[in-house]
Amino acid sequence: MEISGVSLIAGREGSKTGSPFHAVNPVSGEAVEPAFFSASQQEVAQALEAAQAAFLVWRKSTGTERARLLRTIADGLDAATAELVARAKMETALPEPRLKGETQRTSNQLRLFARVVEEGSWVEARIDRALPNRTPLPRPDLRSMLQPLGPVVVFGASNFPLAFSVAGGDTASALAAGCPVVVKAHPAHPGTSELVGRILADSLQSCGAPHGLFSLLFDSGFAVGQALVEHPLTCAVAFTGSRRGGQSLMSLAAGRPNPIPCFAEMGSTNPVFVLPGALASQTREIAAGLFGSFTLGAGQFCTKPGMVFVPNLEETELLLGELHRLTRDSTGFTLLTPAIAANYRRAIEERALSCGVPAGRVTQTSGACSAAPVLLETEIDAFLQQPELSEEIFGPTSLVIRCAGREAMLRAAEHLEGHLTATLLGTEEDLAAYADLVAVLERKAGRVLFNGYPTGVEVCDAMVHGGPYPASSDSRFTSVGTLAILRFARPVCYQGFPQAALPEELHDANPRGILRIVDGISNREPF
Amino acid sequence: MEISGVSLIAGREGSKTGSPFHAVNPVSGEAVEPAFFSASQQEVAQALEAAQAAFLVWRKSTGTERARLLRTIADGLDAATAELVARAKMETALPEPRLKGETQRTSNQLRLFARVVEEGSWVEARIDRALPNRTPLPRPDLRSMLQPLGPVVVFGASNFPLAFSVAGGDTASALAAGCPVVVKAHPAHPGTSELVGRILADSLQSCGAPHGLFSLLFDSGFAVGQALVEHPLTCAVAFTGSRRGGQSLMSLAAGRPNPIPCFAEMGSTNPVFVLPGALASQTREIAAGLFGSFTLGAGQFCTKPGMVFVPNLEETELLLGELHRLTRDSTGFTLLTPAIAANYRRAIEERALSCGVPAGRVTQTSGACSAAPVLLETEIDAFLQQPELSEEIFGPTSLVIRCAGREAMLRAAEHLEGHLTATLLGTEEDLAAYADLVAVLERKAGRVLFNGYPTGVEVCDAMVHGGPYPASSDSRFTSVGTLAILRFARPVCYQGFPQAALPEELHDANPRGILRIVDGISNREPF
Repeated sequence: MEISGVSLIAGREGSKTGSPFHAVNPVSGEAVEPAFFSASQQEVAQALEAAQAAFLVWRKSTGTERARLLRTIADGLDAATAELVARAKMETALPEPRLKGETQRTSNQLRLFARVVEEGSWVEARIDRALPNRTPLPRPDLRSMLQPLGPVVVFGASNFPLAFSVAGGDTASALAAGCPVVVKAHPAHPGTSELVGRILADSLQSCGAPHGLFSLLFDSGFAVGQALVEHPLTCAVAFTGSRRGGQSLMSLAAGRPNPIPCFAEMGSTNPVFVLPGALASQTREIAAGLFGSFTLGAGQFCTKPGMVFVPNLEETELLLGELHRLTRDSTGFTLLTPAIAANYRRAIEERALSCGVPAGRVTQTSGACSAAPVLLETEIDAFLQQPELSEEIFGPTSLVIRCAGREAMLRAAEHLEGHLTATLLGTEEDLAAYADLVAVLERKAGRVLFNGYPTGVEVCDAMVHGGPYPASSDSRFTSVGTLAILRFARPVCYQGFPQAALPEELHDANPRGILRIVDGISNREPF
Repeated sequence: MEISGVSLIAGREGSKTGSPFHAVNPVSGEAVEPAFFSASQQEVAQALEAAQAAFLVWRKSTGTERARLLRTIADGLDAATAELVARAKMETALPEPRLKGETQRTSNQLRLFARVVEEGSWVEARIDRALPNRTPLPRPDLRSMLQPLGPVVVFGASNFPLAFSVAGGDTASALAAGCPVVVKAHPAHPGTSELVGRILADSLQSCGAPHGLFSLLFDSGFAVGQALVEHPLTCAVAFTGSRRGGQSLMSLAAGRPNPIPCFAEMGSTNPVFVLPGALASQTREIAAGLFGSFTLGAGQFCTKPGMVFVPNLEETELLLGELHRLTRDSTGFTLLTPAIAANYRRAIEERALSCGVPAGRVTQTSGACSAAPVLLETEIDAFLQQPELSEEIFGPTSLVIRCAGREAMLRAAEHLEGHLTATLLGTEEDLAAYADLVAVLERKAGRVLFNGYPTGVEVCDAMVHGGPYPASSDSRFTSVGTLAILRFARPVCYQGFPQAALPEELHDANPRGILRIVDGISNREPF
């Protein structure tokens, strides 16, 4: 496929009049051709007007139609894997196997949502049949189900050029719900974004779906994103990225004349608690597991374990020694963008001061985006006195916090703000002895892990990728897993409607065979 | 029961140091004893600290325990019906049968949520079992379910002194979800609020539940409400009332250092579309139905039909004649408070000017809270040019909008903002002929009615009492019906946990017998 450098607006190419920008190859620091052109305010409006027009049609599409579209996109991604991986590698410096895996994850995610909407029970159909003889008043016939919200604005993330970007989980779940999508491409991987965008546009075309269901807009700055969130036709926003970015979108969404839902997944520091039994019996395994997890993807995962609470035992020195050795012996990493690399170095230098660790290794690395892994250490009391130590640093670093004992760990846990994940490494005896710690972590995180590492995020029914603020804007939702579709739908109740005027999901005969709650009982029966 | 006039904080009486205020008897305009004392900022903090302490215990309570508490409260309300009705009548001037019915509705609502949590499937348990042999990577065991958010602040509404107040739907659903509740009583019915609050506190006591699960705070102004929403321990807000009130709470909730969910049901004008077939064949019935609905509860329902779109047919004059006759012949009404009555008169005077209708009858009524019903009329073009005509007027009035034809009705529908309800009155042929109108209304309202009146809100599984902004702050939720519980819970995922450390709902054996999604399949089976 050719890369044109222009936005795609409802199947048509945008203009080349906006300010141009280039992707940067993180390895060489050089610009990657071609130039990309920022969308105009007029193009923002065109994309949303086309989205609204498409919505009026697509909202009535069947699960079968939506599934066909999602699978066509997935097939398109699979077929283009080599091309996508090659371009994404140039723009992100992520290794080929990772990018191949991520492409597969992206198409699998689309297929998972295809299954969800094809099966159809996600609409949560509820039927309370009329009770004409009830006293003192008869009950009318009441039936409700989820319906799509309307046009959704999706912001591509820097760190997953495929799975959290143009055809990522936000787009897949919004299209599955019946919502059109306008994507603001992340400027770090515009070529990858355009390639995926073209696959999406071609898929709409070949499925006979309205072109306005999808638009892709470029911008190297913030004007397009702001205009998208503020546009009157936008009904919801999905974002994955930094806390500052997410907070500003939340404010824009809440400050509209008609506020709209904004799901922002803003990353977190993902605390890990190493419990005494495991520390004593699995010291080296834990060191290897932690190091692997905090450097995976060059430490650029939302779920990177950035805080590790360790009890002060005999084996603590061995664990720390191992971690320091792995960190010292590690090859360097290439981060996604020069800005991310610069932020990483600055953050490490500041942190190193307060943790009393020489930061030399970091600042000595060469190359626009290069970064050495850094292990930081502190004591629990110092940690509790310096809230900034809890903040996420994007990149291959983690902070070990030595805890005097059980109480210190509990205090640290209570002190935590909201996180995407919290992890316990321990024996089953540890877990039983630390039930109170688990009870705290359940309140602090969207996902609590036992003897695993948080950096693998499975795409399945039970996944929760969200968490109390500031991990996400609204802990009641997730951006990964089938529950993600609920961000983009609302219940609509039909009272007293004749069969013919009801959506099929609510017909007496249950022609879709979905699970429904009928007069209080869950079943798939017709009546 | 004695009415003391002080706040109830976790089972203890508050102080009498705050500024005192009295309820006003809407019929006589006189103060009703005793004086009530506004809570202090310290009492706000005490209530939330007690709520948080109670939360740490109650979040682990079983469905059986929660059901017992909810039923005990319901029984307490039933037993005190005569006392509640007598006091509420003094404070609201609502008629006895209505208040009796409302008390029953309130206790039924508590019992409905008792059934929901006893049955237990509301937690949406999802289990994806480990796939240790999957390639390229094994899948860990992942299990998720809904968990309570934490302390919820509930604002009592003026218009339902029982069903949307201290032990109303918000409190019932929050307690059911496992959340403590701090209620800010509506100052229009403080005595009723205290009586219900004492029943709640006694119920906690007799069930052995933590006292901090419930507090009731008084205030005649806004300071207590603001402090409650801004308190760091508050996790969610539920409000029913005016748009201005809801908007200011939404802003407070979104402006916190950690924004929290705020469900505000802000009322609406609830458009009704009279379709040609029904107009021709059921003119008098429609007139009687509409009049009954817009004057029910003196027109002080969130779902009052405040806009009626009528085609220009031969029978239109008959319909309007009937409506005018019913309005003219009606006895007057007593509104809830002098402020509501004053607002009603002012709004009618303004509206009457723009609708060219003499407003004399309204301004001539005597008594602090009295109000005559008023039927206003306008043409579709004038309506579309004056957005203020779409605004809700709280009280016994409705606006009839004459529409030239089908296209005008569709244009009017497209022009609507979000509403709680939208109603179609028609024959089945009408409904088929106006399928495009239904499609518009589905996007504009939380509940769409055919041949019914919106003022009856059934408490059941399928009910949606919410709708696109500004009807509610978030159209994805409802404040009436069993779905209301979802406002106060968030999913938590457990990865790799041994059975003993998991909540019962997620055990292999499914000891609670709840409906779960296990490896993609909904069932109640153990495994």
